[in-house]
Amino acid sequence: MFEIIGFLAAILTTISFLPQAVKIIKTKDTSSISLTMYVIFTTGVLCWLVYGIHILNWAVLLANGVTAIFSIIILTYKLIDVINERSSAKTK
Amino acid sequence: MFEIIGFLAAILTTISFLPQAVKIIKTKDTSSISLTMYVIFTTGVLCWLVYGIHILNWAVLLANGVTAIFSIIILTYKLIDVINERSSAKTK
Repeated sequence: MFEIIGFLAAILTTISFLPQAVKIIKTKDTSSISLTMYVIFTTGVLCWLVYGIHILNWAVLLANGVTAIFSIIILTYKLIDVINERSSAKTK
Repeated sequence: MFEIIGFLAAILTTISFLPQAVKIIKTKDTSSISLTMYVIFTTGVLCWLVYGIHILNWAVLLANGVTAIFSIIILTYKLIDVINERSSAKTK
């Protein structure tokens, strides 16, 4: 029973970033997304991946590998927006 | 060395939600935040908490307890926006 809750917890926190990535790809809007959050979060997930490789734990590797993909997509879109905003602010 | 990376991973993925919560509290803007993400993510974090209580692992409890607070704040702001949008759409 509790093993199922643990498994569900891992699945839910991993796939949760998919709808956020899809929303950003569709709307191209990242205005209320925190750049700081995704810089820190992506770094953290990449640390989990390094740790997962070290302890050779496939659950850690799979969960964080999937999360890393979504997180990097969100971070990339946010970074593009931040760079575009700064360059347009310069030309004003 | 690798234990430090694992510890850093846990700290970074936990605190990363703080700047997102602060940004939303300051700007009151949740337009590009995915409601689906925070419903799924908050449910997942609460499952982690239940699992953490079961296995009595303080690292799991602490990390997910802190994340739950930030995640619930973000979800609450998003829900308020969604409810307000729907009620204003009805009056139009």
